[in-house]
Amino acid sequence: MPTKAKRWVLALRPEGKPKVENFRLEEIELPEIGEHEILIRTEHHSVDPGMRGRLSGDSYTSALPLGQTIDSAMVGVVEQSRNEKFKPGDRVTGGFGWVTHAISNGRGVQILPPEMYHGKLRPTAAIGVLGIPGLTSYFGLLDLGRPKEGDTVLISSAAGPVGATAGQIAKMKGCKVVGIAGSKEKCDYVKGLGFDACFSYRGADLKAAIREHCPEGVDIYFDNVGAEMLDAAILNMKEHGRIVVSGQVSEYNRADNELVGIRNVTRFITHRLRMEGLVVFDYFKQFREAQAEMAQWIHDGKLTYTEDVSDGIEGSAAAFIGLFEGENLGRRLIKVS
Amino acid sequence: MPTKAKRWVLALRPEGKPKVENFRLEEIELPEIGEHEILIRTEHHSVDPGMRGRLSGDSYTSALPLGQTIDSAMVGVVEQSRNEKFKPGDRVTGGFGWVTHAISNGRGVQILPPEMYHGKLRPTAAIGVLGIPGLTSYFGLLDLGRPKEGDTVLISSAAGPVGATAGQIAKMKGCKVVGIAGSKEKCDYVKGLGFDACFSYRGADLKAAIREHCPEGVDIYFDNVGAEMLDAAILNMKEHGRIVVSGQVSEYNRADNELVGIRNVTRFITHRLRMEGLVVFDYFKQFREAQAEMAQWIHDGKLTYTEDVSDGIEGSAAAFIGLFEGENLGRRLIKVS
Repeated sequence: MPTKAKRWVLALRPEGKPKVENFRLEEIELPEIGEHEILIRTEHHSVDPGMRGRLSGDSYTSALPLGQTIDSAMVGVVEQSRNEKFKPGDRVTGGFGWVTHAISNGRGVQILPPEMYHGKLRPTAAIGVLGIPGLTSYFGLLDLGRPKEGDTVLISSAAGPVGATAGQIAKMKGCKVVGIAGSKEKCDYVKGLGFDACFSYRGADLKAAIREHCPEGVDIYFDNVGAEMLDAAILNMKEHGRIVVSGQVSEYNRADNELVGIRNVTRFITHRLRMEGLVVFDYFKQFREAQAEMAQWIHDGKLTYTEDVSDGIEGSAAAFIGLFEGENLGRRLIKVS
Repeated sequence: MPTKAKRWVLALRPEGKPKVENFRLEEIELPEIGEHEILIRTEHHSVDPGMRGRLSGDSYTSALPLGQTIDSAMVGVVEQSRNEKFKPGDRVTGGFGWVTHAISNGRGVQILPPEMYHGKLRPTAAIGVLGIPGLTSYFGLLDLGRPKEGDTVLISSAAGPVGATAGQIAKMKGCKVVGIAGSKEKCDYVKGLGFDACFSYRGADLKAAIREHCPEGVDIYFDNVGAEMLDAAILNMKEHGRIVVSGQVSEYNRADNELVGIRNVTRFITHRLRMEGLVVFDYFKQFREAQAEMAQWIHDGKLTYTEDVSDGIEGSAAAFIGLFEGENLGRRLIKVS
């Protein structure tokens, strides 16, 4: 029997900030599953600022074709299976996008082991703190930032899922951690996570505000924002400081010729700075080990995560657009069923 | 008996491009040398674009006070000695600046061993290819660039002493090497050094010109220029490309609020780029070993160097200013005596 499903597709390439008209919610009928296939019912899918690039076709993965399902991670339940590796009721994660249901041959689909996902570790963590955002924090901070005890770590978008996780890991490594976020409420949340300090960028003289909170200078700047914020951080870096380019959310909606970038490149010489970007998939072979370590931290109460969940797949596009307004506090997810 | 000497001092801090009025040539009398002191007569001193920062006081070393001798490296001969480590006639190098004579207690003064400096290795090499410029090429390329056989290496200011040396070392490491210089004549010189290709930036669409000469992309960009040239290189970097920030000569005459910088920081994520700056003094403990290796390359004819020598200390300021017009081909030196 065919399954009625819904999915969001790319209707029109956005210029600048995405609008609801760039997306279209479609009703489709999925065929019956074939041999070796499974039918997954989505419970939650994510909305990710980094996906903005594919909408314009200027990102590292090829541009998303018009009419194609919008990309994202999802957590769901196997409803039907003709694949021996899966049985109905298995909770799984995969990259099927903004959909209510998906058919798969099982490739790239992981079963969430119930002995790992219990108590404080909810299944949605698989597409959050143990998924791409959390792994970006983990490898960006530890492999590129290389924190040492006593280092001062500055983190932008500190109330977002990447920044919040990076800051907590930096605290575990004995660093002083300062966050930058978009409101007093977000800063209160960030300080509640154990950050030593946090300030709002709104209306701030960024260079002076960073200096005030990091008077001894910054050893590691974990950047999720880019542009003026990155440039102000550069002016506060200590010698041999490391800049982790994790995200550049303030640039994602800008056309190539409108990018702001940074001016203070001469500081790279005078202060021997290093700036490095990452795409977390490069660490794929180390994912399992990192996830096990972070899972243990969560069960032990050393690492917490926050989800910002809206109900219903009808709101996916608006929730995505809101990411660029700084609406979310924690990992933004859509509860689909 | 006192010695009549001349020296250039900082008369007025430059704004923008330095002018002759920013400098003043003074006649002074040096006292007789005291116990443990030596009197050095300058044969050659260098003029260095990196010194521009100290004239404005925004560089890594403290600002040069007004009235103080302009910094540079020099090669000279010991004329008088009351220090047992030196004897008259010793050829030495030190950091005494734009002067005809200097008195020293010997600290920081190196005797050039005649068994090393002979034949192709002239004493002036001690303040050129074996001095700060050559060591910057060596450590910048090898330690930060980490060239592998078959890599494509792009080098700006390729006809300058740092770029020319970096390119020849990259060729020895089995790389394809492309230079950027300021004229067809300079490019001919650069190609004569063994670079695979060279193009002039004047009037060029930099992004397209780099793409044309590096169609497979750039693994290492060794940057001496900064700003638009750096930004165009970034757009041509391969994944995991390395950018060595050796110099930013196009930015040195700009006030802080006029810096151009780069726009394409998002490429650091999509292409996993790394950008790192160096100050060569950080490698001080490895200088001797690097110099011995480069000296051998020079004696073996694998590494060549070019000097651009003007006669007379009266011309030092004009020669320095000309660096920012791209006048020089190779290491610019002043022959003092």
